Amino acid sequence: MTTIKRILLASRPTGEVTPANFRFDSMSVPTLEDGEVLVRHHYLSLDPYMRGRMSDAKSYAAPQPLDEVMLGGTVGEVVESRNSGFKTGDKVSGFGGWQEFSVSTGRDLQKLPDLPIPISAYLGAVGMPGITAWYGLEKICKVKPGETLAVSAASGAVGSVVGQLAKANGARVIGIAGGAEKCAYVTRTLGFDACLDYKAGDLDAALKAAAPQGLDAYFENVGGAVNAAVLKRLNPFARIAVCGLISGYNTNETTSLDLRWVLVQRLKIEGFIVSDHLDIWPQALRELGTLVASGKLHFRESIAEGLAAAPEAFIGLLEGKNFGKQLVKLV
Amino acid sequence: MTTIKRILLASRPTGEVTPANFRFDSMSVPTLEDGEVLVRHHYLSLDPYMRGRMSDAKSYAAPQPLDEVMLGGTVGEVVESRNSGFKTGDKVSGFGGWQEFSVSTGRDLQKLPDLPIPISAYLGAVGMPGITAWYGLEKICKVKPGETLAVSAASGAVGSVVGQLAKANGARVIGIAGGAEKCAYVTRTLGFDACLDYKAGDLDAALKAAAPQGLDAYFENVGGAVNAAVLKRLNPFARIAVCGLISGYNTNETTSLDLRWVLVQRLKIEGFIVSDHLDIWPQALRELGTLVASGKLHFRESIAEGLAAAPEAFIGLLEGKNFGKQLVKLV
Repeated sequence: MTTIKRILLASRPTGEVTPANFRFDSMSVPTLEDGEVLVRHHYLSLDPYMRGRMSDAKSYAAPQPLDEVMLGGTVGEVVESRNSGFKTGDKVSGFGGWQEFSVSTGRDLQKLPDLPIPISAYLGAVGMPGITAWYGLEKICKVKPGETLAVSAASGAVGSVVGQLAKANGARVIGIAGGAEKCAYVTRTLGFDACLDYKAGDLDAALKAAAPQGLDAYFENVGGAVNAAVLKRLNPFARIAVCGLISGYNTNETTSLDLRWVLVQRLKIEGFIVSDHLDIWPQALRELGTLVASGKLHFRESIAEGLAAAPEAFIGLLEGKNFGKQLVKLV
Repeated sequence: MTTIKRILLASRPTGEVTPANFRFDSMSVPTLEDGEVLVRHHYLSLDPYMRGRMSDAKSYAAPQPLDEVMLGGTVGEVVESRNSGFKTGDKVSGFGGWQEFSVSTGRDLQKLPDLPIPISAYLGAVGMPGITAWYGLEKICKVKPGETLAVSAASGAVGSVVGQLAKANGARVIGIAGGAEKCAYVTRTLGFDACLDYKAGDLDAALKAAAPQGLDAYFENVGGAVNAAVLKRLNPFARIAVCGLISGYNTNETTSLDLRWVLVQRLKIEGFIVSDHLDIWPQALRELGTLVASGKLHFRESIAEGLAAAPEAFIGLLEGKNFGKQLVKLV
């Protein structure tokens, strides 16, 4: 190999993301400076937050610059090192972006622990999505045994972990997902108590039937019509962890909350971004890694093959076409 | 005295409350049963929450029944007792309602401590409104020194205490109130750093000028346009204590929150009702009573004279005509 294939942000989407927003590019492998590490990426993670970075609307993070490599989490292997902290063969996770290799000073690389789990898990259940689930559940939803929690995008990288952790905490768990196949996975493999297909019609009635005692917590990944249906079923003192609003990312559809309902039901709502809470990462990673290694935490992946497949896979993710954590396999 | 004058709920308001929603009535003083206490009310408290009880819309509390005495907090003096826990002359607070006397089993009566403060304070700064302020500030807004807090209805029974406690915690405090006279009181007597008159025009610009560094916490008493202006100025990780939405009580105007903003700014929003938190009442009452007795916590009252003035005073309260805690003097 002498060149690195890369994908740059060519233009900002207006409405839906299209393949034309991306540009393929290549560069020769750079010569390392002292202190640098060359990482070969095995997997690239595709995540909904990337849609926000493609826009330049005010948000919690700076926009992705145009004509630069798309940002993204990666796992891979050190193939060359001029940094005493890393040696060839080390397995690492980092933010290498949408490219086959990346050069790092090592500061943003994490050496992966020696657990009997696939390396790709460090981009999903034992990575940022899993920690996101852990934080929202343990620090915001705080479900107690006997309570009922709902989670949207239930078969996804975050939602699937939310529900399994809530079940482990003794809660009744209702997933919401798009389509019968995803719902079957959510109840049969992940063990949720129920899963409602939001594409199947009357979500209000389905929620009422599935949660006759109402909902004590809601983990929000989606927004829009799903949010509206769930809000009506919230019990007094319910907690809402606002993690994502993917239904509006392409459409600018707004999801709003009536403050009178917040007052009447004494709701607690909290928006969060897991990167604000680096203090909890070691504990969460340890717990999630142990659960996956022991077979108690299931996850599923949608794997696109090769870097060239990334734009299409990302567009599919925003439309809910993926089924499980969306990855791009690069080796 | 042989009759007790009383005010009953005659009909539920549709939109604005009118005098016709109330009916004057009288009854003879009942003969006490064993265990009962007769209390002569010195003051009746009028509070925004009463508007909610007059409706039969779903809320956190059962509606006020028609043709029964309007509910309300009272302070007064025991004038006859067949309960060993109380003796004639005891000063008490309770929920005696819109009437001159009430009979109680004693279970809902609190004997007032012997502090050098006026008895009416136990309906305001050292009563339910003061404890409401204390809870929302200490348990939800949690302002730290150097942070900036905004509070609406800043000259009112709750808002005035919120701002003074926040100042004592080292925060910068911006009040929002209706009219120059109220604003002058808020800055000069209560010591807030600024007070914005929402009736004066461009609240967006006024907030930007008064809080150039943005707002870290907001204590919401009002809703509507004031809420919309404040939301835009919230900093990341800001907290909103949702205590009341008086601007919509008569009009059914809704106040909503865009969840994208909640996510982008990682906001924490909590609706609360102080009667859910009886565990904190003793601590809050002790602290508030001490502050008032030592002259460190100021309060102001709007006093209507005589029970017959209660309906008009209550209607004025909903329109923001009162200036300070609205009371009815009955003795």
